[in-house]
Amino acid sequence: MNGAESLVTTAIAAGTEVCFANFGTSELTLVAALDAIPGIRPVQALFEGVCTGAADGYGRMRDKPAMTLLHLGVGLSNGLANLHNAKRARTPVLNIVGEHATWHQRWDSPERTDIRGLALPVSDWVKTCESADTVSQDTADAISASLRGQVAVLIVPQDSQWGECEPQSIIRPQCAYGSMDEARVRRAAEALRSGTASLLLLGGRALRPRGLLAAARIKASTGCDILAETFAGRIERGAGLPGVDRLPYFPQQAIERLSRYQSVVLAGSRDPVATFAYRDGRSRFLRDDQAIFTIADTNHDLEEVLDFMADLVSSPGQATAPTGLEEPLNRPTVPHGRLTAETACRTLAALQPEGAIIVDEAVTSGGTYDAFSKGAPPHTLLTVTGGAIGQGMPCALGAAIACPDRPVINLQADGSAMYTVQALWTQAREGLDVTTLLCANRSYDILKIEMARSGHVPLGSAAQALTDLGSPDLDWVNMSKGMGVPAASVETSEDLARELTRALEEPGPHLIEMVLTR
Amino acid sequence: MNGAESLVTTAIAAGTEVCFANFGTSELTLVAALDAIPGIRPVQALFEGVCTGAADGYGRMRDKPAMTLLHLGVGLSNGLANLHNAKRARTPVLNIVGEHATWHQRWDSPERTDIRGLALPVSDWVKTCESADTVSQDTADAISASLRGQVAVLIVPQDSQWGECEPQSIIRPQCAYGSMDEARVRRAAEALRSGTASLLLLGGRALRPRGLLAAARIKASTGCDILAETFAGRIERGAGLPGVDRLPYFPQQAIERLSRYQSVVLAGSRDPVATFAYRDGRSRFLRDDQAIFTIADTNHDLEEVLDFMADLVSSPGQATAPTGLEEPLNRPTVPHGRLTAETACRTLAALQPEGAIIVDEAVTSGGTYDAFSKGAPPHTLLTVTGGAIGQGMPCALGAAIACPDRPVINLQADGSAMYTVQALWTQAREGLDVTTLLCANRSYDILKIEMARSGHVPLGSAAQALTDLGSPDLDWVNMSKGMGVPAASVETSEDLARELTRALEEPGPHLIEMVLTR
Repeated sequence: MNGAESLVTTAIAAGTEVCFANFGTSELTLVAALDAIPGIRPVQALFEGVCTGAADGYGRMRDKPAMTLLHLGVGLSNGLANLHNAKRARTPVLNIVGEHATWHQRWDSPERTDIRGLALPVSDWVKTCESADTVSQDTADAISASLRGQVAVLIVPQDSQWGECEPQSIIRPQCAYGSMDEARVRRAAEALRSGTASLLLLGGRALRPRGLLAAARIKASTGCDILAETFAGRIERGAGLPGVDRLPYFPQQAIERLSRYQSVVLAGSRDPVATFAYRDGRSRFLRDDQAIFTIADTNHDLEEVLDFMADLVSSPGQATAPTGLEEPLNRPTVPHGRLTAETACRTLAALQPEGAIIVDEAVTSGGTYDAFSKGAPPHTLLTVTGGAIGQGMPCALGAAIACPDRPVINLQADGSAMYTVQALWTQAREGLDVTTLLCANRSYDILKIEMARSGHVPLGSAAQALTDLGSPDLDWVNMSKGMGVPAASVETSEDLARELTRALEEPGPHLIEMVLTR
Repeated sequence: MNGAESLVTTAIAAGTEVCFANFGTSELTLVAALDAIPGIRPVQALFEGVCTGAADGYGRMRDKPAMTLLHLGVGLSNGLANLHNAKRARTPVLNIVGEHATWHQRWDSPERTDIRGLALPVSDWVKTCESADTVSQDTADAISASLRGQVAVLIVPQDSQWGECEPQSIIRPQCAYGSMDEARVRRAAEALRSGTASLLLLGGRALRPRGLLAAARIKASTGCDILAETFAGRIERGAGLPGVDRLPYFPQQAIERLSRYQSVVLAGSRDPVATFAYRDGRSRFLRDDQAIFTIADTNHDLEEVLDFMADLVSSPGQATAPTGLEEPLNRPTVPHGRLTAETACRTLAALQPEGAIIVDEAVTSGGTYDAFSKGAPPHTLLTVTGGAIGQGMPCALGAAIACPDRPVINLQADGSAMYTVQALWTQAREGLDVTTLLCANRSYDILKIEMARSGHVPLGSAAQALTDLGSPDLDWVNMSKGMGVPAASVETSEDLARELTRALEEPGPHLIEMVLTR
């Protein structure tokens, strides 16, 4: 057995099922190992940003890592943006990156790069294998790290791939949460019970059904408010689940929303700050005189912590009773006439089937979706977490591989879609049930909004050229068909409803270009 | 005047004419400055790898930097692979990357990244502005660095963009070569004249007409051989210019080719090493017992050095006489029948017009192009220098912006094309005379070759899935039309000849999908 085979064997033993790959000459021994040892499904992507974005989508849905296989520093570079998103979402991802044989690294060869240096800014865990003998342990360590919701990068030099090692040395990953900090949780519970205005701000696994239910029990017992962080990796929502609004994106609204609280309990969410700096100089949304309680870190089982806290604040027997916060089944009807961003969201909310996975990278066009879909049948919402656009299509691909029995609907901005448009081909190749609702507003609208907010109006010719996506208009039907995904273009809600219904009925991927008017 | 305006003013004063951009909220003050101060053409790209690849192509043709404008670390990440190629090509590139306002950087905001850490592995020069007052000096320093054939990254925090500074503080870049090391050049000349087998290995600016002519004079006087490095950023070639073969790619052939020499003079080329490590453990192509002479470093004017050396070894008066090494005008005829990689290259060589800029990212399909086009009318050849694929289409775009009066022909592999396919849209938007000859072999053929070379034959199902680009076949005509570039698909040399002739006659970009048989 060689190092590459021990890597694959270890990964399979740890439950790895999928490898999103775009490899090169320095990784061919790893591909030979995938040939030799069945158990990992190889999924080809035509760009590394698709590999890492798909691994993010997969990991969010399965709570275990997909593997990526990337070519040296140049291949890793192309995958960095979506690893940044995965890191912000705390998604388990196992990246395997090939490296030149040890003796080759001293030479100034064309593809020599500082792989570790490239990986560090977007990763939680980075290691380079020292020999074939350590590959199994290193792989197990990488998987263990990833299972804590981390992006792991294991760099495997060629001589560690092809070197011989002992077959019995396969290591199984270990990953267990540490004990919760009960005193900390009790202090936070006390604050919520104190009768002053308080907020429970949810993030990470607090937005799964168990966490949401615990949060709803806490709210029902203490009268606190609950909110979700703005950029949540995954939210379970819809009829029957406690509904949680997300903290607004723009600073003024977020600060206003948070200003009323004396205490804020962070449950898997970060201390909320603005995405961008503005000239007023205020980054943090909370004030120094607001009391902050953090009840768990990444080493804790957040759902267990929330259950414990709910038990602390509520009466026995309330654990299984309805909290009264469950959303009723309540969805809009399909509207009529020309499509706008709002009627597109409304149509989706009207028709999305139970169990749908909604991947939202619609940026400005998706602004009303959350409200329309609150009472839709239960579904999962995946959003962009790190601001790196080009996340939606690959994420939808990965989610569809993770959950082949669930329909995936990708509400997708056009500008962002172009970043990783290659994902469509892999969706076609793998025959995945992904429906892309392409919001063709032909503009980087968010930038126009931000320029107006900063007082730069009207736009000059440079700003116009750099925010406008027309001239020529992208023809999404042709592009999609060119990559093997059947496509249609619609301009009214009725047509969207018809095409969406058809797409959801037919197996395989579809793209619907929604030409939006303002 | 604010910092952003001083940046733009300094860049214009230094001759910057173009900005390949994809910006975000943290760069909007820079875009407002582009609006306020005319002089830099803003070119929108729909992915940052297109921006940096275009800047590479532009810089190779103009010997001065284009500017890129990129959004924080996530935007820079997407541009890293083509910056790696630019660095290897020693192309002048000026990258402007926005950064959060200084006070915002301490917060764990969604797009916070270590921009400097991301830039370092692919850059020669990286700096972060400290205030608006230093922006002009920093910009001038960045441009000076780039003019030495370097990739420069200037990180500009928002408060350095919007802060006020003195308008009179605009700094002009300084860049001058140092004096050559005459003694070193004399020693190398001595070795070439010694009568033993010797080689002059050319790279960088040695492959421009002046360098080539000097090299030909040196060969004519000393009997040395001349070769070009394998991955040359830019080669001037064709009828009337001294023809130079490139060092073969595969180690066995390169080592064999170089084994005969007792002395090797490196003129702008690197000590040649294998791109990848193989199990035999040999990376460097030259042996320790071969004498190596390096006649210039990046601080020297290589063309002047070669002229000086040619004068040293030749008799007076020979400087303007023909060397006898000039290629005669001699091109193949258009072949007949089904297209193969070879007949595609032959057809191109038969028809390419004088002054064409050929961007070759055809990988395996382009293998015979060099030989067929040796005696074609004078032309420029740009190749992939750093092994990061996705270079061809953006490079062609940048070259076309740099040289609007010259036809650009991009001989392009399909797998590599998919990496930065978004470049087609910018080619259409800017109406550029780029003809893409798309080599549709529907396979990462180089990987199949390398797997066979390593003994991994036949391919198993994983290797097959990860090297095959069919299922579904990419339809390049639809994809190209979808981005606004007229396209046709051809299967015979005759059809290729007809479509290529038409594409070269019509203004604006075209794509010709060449369906290749084996």
